[in-house]
Amino acid sequence: MAGNTFGKLFKLTTFGESHGEAIGGVIDGCPAGLKLDFDKIKEDLQRRRPGQSSIVTQRKEADKVSFLSGIFEGITTGTPIAFYIPNTNAKSKDYSHLKDAYRPSHADYTYDAKYGVRDYRGGGRSSARETASRVVAGAIAKQILQSVKIKAFVSSVGKISLDKTYKELDLNEIEHNDVRCPDPKTALEMEEYIRSIRKQGDTVGGIITCVIRGVPIGIGAPVFDKLHAELGKAMLSINAVKGFEYGSGFSGTQMLGSEHNDNFTADFRTHTNYSGGIQGGISNGEDIYFRVAFKPVATLIQKQELLHKSGRLVTEQGRGRHDPCVVPRAVPIVEAMAALVLVDLYLQSRADRL
Amino acid sequence: MAGNTFGKLFKLTTFGESHGEAIGGVIDGCPAGLKLDFDKIKEDLQRRRPGQSSIVTQRKEADKVSFLSGIFEGITTGTPIAFYIPNTNAKSKDYSHLKDAYRPSHADYTYDAKYGVRDYRGGGRSSARETASRVVAGAIAKQILQSVKIKAFVSSVGKISLDKTYKELDLNEIEHNDVRCPDPKTALEMEEYIRSIRKQGDTVGGIITCVIRGVPIGIGAPVFDKLHAELGKAMLSINAVKGFEYGSGFSGTQMLGSEHNDNFTADFRTHTNYSGGIQGGISNGEDIYFRVAFKPVATLIQKQELLHKSGRLVTEQGRGRHDPCVVPRAVPIVEAMAALVLVDLYLQSRADRL
Amino acid sequence: MAGNTFGKLFKLTTFGESHGEAIGGVIDGCPAGLKLDFDKIKEDLQRRRPGQSSIVTQRKEADKVSFLSGIFEGITTGTPIAFYIPNTNAKSKDYSHLKDAYRPSHADYTYDAKYGVRDYRGGGRSSARETASRVVAGAIAKQILQSVKIKAFVSSVGKISLDKTYKELDLNEIEHNDVRCPDPKTALEMEEYIRSIRKQGDTVGGIITCVIRGVPIGIGAPVFDKLHAELGKAMLSINAVKGFEYGSGFSGTQMLGSEHNDNFTADFRTHTNYSGGIQGGISNGEDIYFRVAFKPVATLIQKQELLHKSGRLVTEQGRGRHDPCVVPRAVPIVEAMAALVLVDLYLQSRADRL
Amino acid sequence: MAGNTFGKLFKLTTFGESHGEAIGGVIDGCPAGLKLDFDKIKEDLQRRRPGQSSIVTQRKEADKVSFLSGIFEGITTGTPIAFYIPNTNAKSKDYSHLKDAYRPSHADYTYDAKYGVRDYRGGGRSSARETASRVVAGAIAKQILQSVKIKAFVSSVGKISLDKTYKELDLNEIEHNDVRCPDPKTALEMEEYIRSIRKQGDTVGGIITCVIRGVPIGIGAPVFDKLHAELGKAMLSINAVKGFEYGSGFSGTQMLGSEHNDNFTADFRTHTNYSGGIQGGISNGEDIYFRVAFKPVATLIQKQELLHKSGRLVTEQGRGRHDPCVVPRAVPIVEAMAALVLVDLYLQSRADRL
Repeated sequence: MAGNTFGKLFKLTTFGESHGEAIGGVIDGCPAGLKLDFDKIKEDLQRRRPGQSSIVTQRKEADKVSFLSGIFEGITTGTPIAFYIPNTNAKSKDYSHLKDAYRPSHADYTYDAKYGVRDYRGGGRSSARETASRVVAGAIAKQILQSVKIKAFVSSVGKISLDKTYKELDLNEIEHNDVRCPDPKTALEMEEYIRSIRKQGDTVGGIITCVIRGVPIGIGAPVFDKLHAELGKAMLSINAVKGFEYGSGFSGTQMLGSEHNDNFTADFRTHTNYSGGIQGGISNGEDIYFRVAFKPVATLIQKQELLHKSGRLVTEQGRGRHDPCVVPRAVPIVEAMAALVLVDLYLQSRADRL
Repeated sequence: MAGNTFGKLFKLTTFGESHGEAIGGVIDGCPAGLKLDFDKIKEDLQRRRPGQSSIVTQRKEADKVSFLSGIFEGITTGTPIAFYIPNTNAKSKDYSHLKDAYRPSHADYTYDAKYGVRDYRGGGRSSARETASRVVAGAIAKQILQSVKIKAFVSSVGKISLDKTYKELDLNEIEHNDVRCPDPKTALEMEEYIRSIRKQGDTVGGIITCVIRGVPIGIGAPVFDKLHAELGKAMLSINAVKGFEYGSGFSGTQMLGSEHNDNFTADFRTHTNYSGGIQGGISNGEDIYFRVAFKPVATLIQKQELLHKSGRLVTEQGRGRHDPCVVPRAVPIVEAMAALVLVDLYLQSRADRL
Repeated sequence: MAGNTFGKLFKLTTFGESHGEAIGGVIDGCPAGLKLDFDKIKEDLQRRRPGQSSIVTQRKEADKVSFLSGIFEGITTGTPIAFYIPNTNAKSKDYSHLKDAYRPSHADYTYDAKYGVRDYRGGGRSSARETASRVVAGAIAKQILQSVKIKAFVSSVGKISLDKTYKELDLNEIEHNDVRCPDPKTALEMEEYIRSIRKQGDTVGGIITCVIRGVPIGIGAPVFDKLHAELGKAMLSINAVKGFEYGSGFSGTQMLGSEHNDNFTADFRTHTNYSGGIQGGISNGEDIYFRVAFKPVATLIQKQELLHKSGRLVTEQGRGRHDPCVVPRAVPIVEAMAALVLVDLYLQSRADRL
Repeated sequence: MAGNTFGKLFKLTTFGESHGEAIGGVIDGCPAGLKLDFDKIKEDLQRRRPGQSSIVTQRKEADKVSFLSGIFEGITTGTPIAFYIPNTNAKSKDYSHLKDAYRPSHADYTYDAKYGVRDYRGGGRSSARETASRVVAGAIAKQILQSVKIKAFVSSVGKISLDKTYKELDLNEIEHNDVRCPDPKTALEMEEYIRSIRKQGDTVGGIITCVIRGVPIGIGAPVFDKLHAELGKAMLSINAVKGFEYGSGFSGTQMLGSEHNDNFTADFRTHTNYSGGIQGGISNGEDIYFRVAFKPVATLIQKQELLHKSGRLVTEQGRGRHDPCVVPRAVPIVEAMAALVLVDLYLQSRADRL
């Protein structure tokens, strides 16, 4: 119940604190017989890695994953796949001032209130570093559903927003710029803006859009574990996420039913897709698409007030190497969580019928 | 895995199709020793009930709940609480034309694709009637956390939107009008608009805001089962929901970190509350608030095209007694799901420490 | 966690107290498309029913099951199957003396200690009446795995014990006598013995053997959820069970490895079957067989001492209509639990491979 | 569902193959604030370790555990505790002949049938080496319930059996001999017998008895997850276990109810304890005791027939360093699994009441 496991049949349990020995995870329930493409795992880790470009944190973490079990001669055996990523660049003394102090809008205070004890170094377990384990598992999950194509991209940074729908964009452009926005012109604007924000020692939020094609019809459990409810939970479990909408989303609330209904074509497709590929919680074969809202990173390179355990407020100059905007690096995390949801519900769907 | 259970320690399993014998549920894990207030259960069912006002469906369902177990002399015994609500007003022959046909933006097609068989009468299991069981369980959950106050209300209908934050509103006004909007003037506008929509045989979406006060500090599991991730999943599991945001939500993506951070006061509270009462997935004692987006109901009293199993499109005149706008009746459902999440995570938190 | 659910993919949740409104259950995860044979459900309930013969309790309970959901035109739809059995013959005032008193070797004291409250009428939730719900679900489970044949029988009553292995017996004889022992001569002895025990107002224990043929190879999860571990848990969850052994069981501890190893034949079968059809927690296609030990029923028609809540011991004359020996009626319960285990692990095994 | 996780609130997930990189586990749900005694963990590993005495396998495995997370300054933080034990003494080429061949009464054939692929080196995942991870987690679990004393011992080896009840024995003697039998004279007999068996290249089974004192009253969920059902499952999940009985066990089936009932004393204890400390699935405060049957190890140092995948039977001379009798080393494993069950149900019981 402590909530470090995701999924029911394809189950990822993650572990590890930012400045402990290592982070990592165990995947229980990966089907046997999958020939793993380790390069694809590396590639996704690479996309999440600090220091990958000038607009992200300049921490240097190798993020090299080692596998301990569950794979034999490159093939999954159906037994648990354990893996870990050593913490090589942990400058723990940077954090000694946080031993008894809480940063605003961090998890410092709530962890302490909940557990009475906390590894304060680098955010401990609440560090976004934990998501590297999700990327590893997600990269494996992606390899199971070969027909499914998951593409996430940055659709807004602060007030700079893509004014095109995903269908008007060339999603092959996503990885051609540092910010991971498929529109090159907007991408440039975003990058410049992020650089200016960094100079101020400030941070800014953004939105990631994710498009999933090729999901088989019939995936998703129709009541509590609706496909979009699981996707929503998955996204909201990523650090800094504040909102989730799929298909028509919040703007759909302003539409009439006569506009919003997705009429059928004679070949069991739909003309429009306000449903976002999901009806009654179950995939209908159309594109699944959703948007994920990320707040600005709470760690600033500015003066701010910490609250000491004793109840004293202390002004402190923020320092360290942090992301001015989290969305470029969160793109592979969104994809990974989407993959974990889909693989799990796909395996569950094998029990639907006699 | 079939996904009809919600919660881990306080577990609700619901059952039933719209036009079957009954709908109902089993709560496993309700702590022993709770003296149930049955009137409060009735009251919440009443708030969800069809026919309660002129702006909702005019179906007449008694929605009378009977308890079969788990309660002795009015007190919960720690054993499963089973309950059911008979389906008394099921006009099943109204639905015979749907035996082999799929309505647009309903679950007809996806259920059939998934299971190969479906109870087509009244939407079967995908009917929003299922949510009555959630309201029963939620009303019990509310009675466990006595200090917690959950208040949901309608904050927009179509383009008519409250322009005040929840702090500027008198939440005691919510139940004083049919649409459940705490601003009387806006409420009137919304009601008139819904009536005009109904006359057109059309439907419209809307947004529900929910505010929760008095949640103990330390509730929520910090990684995958973050408090807001569980709330998000809970809300997204309600029929017609398309989006969820908490705290600053989507608009928070446009803010700078220096604006967004909730600075501490010396008494361990925060000056602002963009975090929405949750930091690192764990409650911090501030108000929890979130917004839930509902699409327009898919059932129209207009001509529309059904898709026959054979691949033939058939024009049909929609009829029946349906909601022109789902949000007024969804208010108690949002509250119920919030209560289920909170009770479950509260019970889980009892295992946090030695 | 309250432990009223069995299974992971085919999940049975039971509810109900002996003298409440009804007992019943919800099956979540029954695959869609099963044409139910309701007579077979009735038949198994009949085999468990009180009053079925002169050697069991003479309570008259109709044990008529009603289904509320999940079945449409006789076919399972993949949605939850809810059912209940009304409590028609509950003589609750027979139990008023137990309101504040604990019977020896019953659950009276432990329930009260755990929950602080208890429905004392007829044993409440701890009554073996709860197992009727298991028999209903088990009868459905049996219909899913058509090739699997589960046969349980009484192999001992007190010290009267079958001296043949299951292979030397005609299992078609089981249902031809009241005690459900496939050896007619031993059956007669057992029945006479049970009648003599009843006359003394006493009770006696016994053993049930269960043989399962036709289980597909590869069922069972190899580490914690070994097939025999799940069977063991299932059996030990039945009231009055004190032990479980499979294959060579306790007597296998006295054998040498060179005797005990089941050597292969060239067609991937084994010459002997000390393994009991399970190797490494996974079915190997041979017969699965196991033995379940039942203690003597605790309710006697003799003088005995109750412990009053106040700490006073009170002598009381036991009365009522109870089983002198539980094993004849427990045969279908053992089968039902075996079926639940097998169906669940069978559905799980669908996710074993890519 | 792949079954590598044990427990619901205190959850152990194990991973690793015998000859892979490492074995290990993740504990999710260990309460925060426990000051770990690492020596006690080492000590239990030591008791399970190969090469510890002349009557066990002479493999030399260091079995040194490293912790990766969840512990800060020696204290548990409530976050997942990940640990691993490197595989240092893996002579994998010893196993190349098993690549395409199945040993009798091993999991070779069933793994292959289930997964279509298998790490054949040293038994892979089915090796009893996996139980080292259980011992680590069990040693932590023991430290949570300080008042609970769990003592397991060898009560029979082959036909040599202790003829005393646990109450007649001095359980402090257990660790004073290699076989872990608290009666020194019987211990000697057992050890000699095991040595003679080893000389023959054969193996023999045995029985472990476990006694648990100090369990709080009220632990255990009363229906499917009865305390003894969970203990039974836990024990049956250990390699080579064939049976489980608690309290009066199989011999209780021969008793009359009037003998078997445990009459109360005026201070809420019982005179006898045939119930084995558990009534209605819930602990009653008396000693919990149970017996676990282990079959003879399947690996012999004798000639035996392997079955080649092609269906050919091949005679082979068994070799390697194996246990002639598994019970001496299984004593700490039985204790570990008991501890895992108790801690989990203890944490669950915190949600019993309002």
